[in-house]
Amino acid sequence: MSKILVFGHKNPDTDTIASAIALDYYLEKLGYDSESVALGNPNEETAFALNYFNISAPRVIETASNEVTQVALVDHNEPQQSVNDIESLEVLYVVDHHRINGFNTAQPLYYRAEPIGSTASVLYKMFQEKDFDIPSAIAGMMLSAIISDTLLLKSPTTTREDEMIAYELAKIADVNIDAYGLKLLKAGTNIASKSAKELLASDSKVFEMHEHPVQIAQINTVDFVDVSSRKEELLEEISKTLKDSDVELFVVLVTDILENNSFAYVIGQNLEVVEKAFEQKVVDNEIQLPGVVSRKKQVVPQLTDAYSK
Amino acid sequence: MSKILVFGHKNPDTDTIASAIALDYYLEKLGYDSESVALGNPNEETAFALNYFNISAPRVIETASNEVTQVALVDHNEPQQSVNDIESLEVLYVVDHHRINGFNTAQPLYYRAEPIGSTASVLYKMFQEKDFDIPSAIAGMMLSAIISDTLLLKSPTTTREDEMIAYELAKIADVNIDAYGLKLLKAGTNIASKSAKELLASDSKVFEMHEHPVQIAQINTVDFVDVSSRKEELLEEISKTLKDSDVELFVVLVTDILENNSFAYVIGQNLEVVEKAFEQKVVDNEIQLPGVVSRKKQVVPQLTDAYSK
Repeated sequence: MSKILVFGHKNPDTDTIASAIALDYYLEKLGYDSESVALGNPNEETAFALNYFNISAPRVIETASNEVTQVALVDHNEPQQSVNDIESLEVLYVVDHHRINGFNTAQPLYYRAEPIGSTASVLYKMFQEKDFDIPSAIAGMMLSAIISDTLLLKSPTTTREDEMIAYELAKIADVNIDAYGLKLLKAGTNIASKSAKELLASDSKVFEMHEHPVQIAQINTVDFVDVSSRKEELLEEISKTLKDSDVELFVVLVTDILENNSFAYVIGQNLEVVEKAFEQKVVDNEIQLPGVVSRKKQVVPQLTDAYSK
Repeated sequence: MSKILVFGHKNPDTDTIASAIALDYYLEKLGYDSESVALGNPNEETAFALNYFNISAPRVIETASNEVTQVALVDHNEPQQSVNDIESLEVLYVVDHHRINGFNTAQPLYYRAEPIGSTASVLYKMFQEKDFDIPSAIAGMMLSAIISDTLLLKSPTTTREDEMIAYELAKIADVNIDAYGLKLLKAGTNIASKSAKELLASDSKVFEMHEHPVQIAQINTVDFVDVSSRKEELLEEISKTLKDSDVELFVVLVTDILENNSFAYVIGQNLEVVEKAFEQKVVDNEIQLPGVVSRKKQVVPQLTDAYSK
């Protein structure tokens, strides 16, 4: 059997890195020859988790078809979020927790998605179903993924299953969820040290919304002022990005992970679509999004819908 | 919780009907209010199985959005194979064993696909994972689905898992696989009683292949002559169908289920694509396909690839 590369989306977050590591381990248990890789370097939050559980960061790749013919995707399916040469690869496995969009294959495949808080939670269920043990360090990474994607089990994407799975994983990894979780989330909110470009790139995805390419970045913070004090610099950087790409609209979701609240900067075409989606006015490229913390559940479907109206 | 309709593809086959019945039962066990329905009447093979296991045929629907907002799909995902108003429904669950093509959602969902012989086999694994019992009659329908889709475990889509699952289901349903299986398959090959139109419609699907709509019907027989003696009538009927639709190419796969062999009638544009796909000449709208029995594994990927060359 030829080798399979396992990877998550571009601008990798903790769920993408942890799930690639976990699915790699799972596939090896099934007898495949696999390797987890990444489409970028770990962000600071993920680096904290990797360091805490003493796991090396996966090797970064630009393309996969120079190494393999078959790949396994975690935590994404949309081609523009995947490796650049995804169209010339056979996707053998997908494990995900997002909508399905623009993902087409010629062959039948394994596809496992559930509308729950993290891809790592889906993987936990797959391990359970096969009765596979999870090594402590991998359990720690999977727990970190759940904490990251659910903002410590508080995001509206969190299900009872995620909670139960997080507690099981915390036992295996031997950490206290709340104490570890807060340290992990705070490690990802180090805003002062980053350039505007880095802030925008660290958790950014492009979505096709009824043929409109929309880029949505998310910046987590423990204080809105840390971000809003850099508004001009951020808007300038976004304008530059828009000039060089076919993206029509750029949204930066700024989320206070302690207060579970967001506002967003929006630049580009059709700002009235954003106003329609959230029933709020855009003032000076800024829109208030009280109670919003989840891009996937509270931003993407609403914007997609608004484009079709 | 509002009601969920569960259904398979248009021109339903045994796997589509059986899997809708099985997923309906599974969802009810999970606490959902669901109903299995169908996008057409059962074919003769499926009618034989329903009669044998004393299950009523699912109600036939034309549209779903007049009844529900949420649906569960089995045994298909491509929109042109689904209910006519699929675009105005939220797909909550998909259980399938086909390629993914043209399937887009705005929301995260449950998606469970595996590259194995039948959707019923995937459902069997889902029942096992939840430790749900399968009632004898539903087990009989699921077994019929596996027999039908794998031509009694002989098609190249058959995996070791399908075989093991078929034997487990046969135990629950209390039937002999080989004796029952042959009766079931033969019930579906009653060609003399059907008009050319009925023969073409009974197991027919449209596939988008790099923007080329291709319709592929499959006719199972125990003797090629039963079909080839009606070639003119079939070609005439296909020509009529092509005039009234945007389908570019119509392929009728004629499969001898005892010899595990096929030939095909092909009409439409770009017949050279068919020749490229199968490395055989098309003579008088006919192409020999020795050893081919699976549309999904031995026809669709090859044709799709040939269109992109």
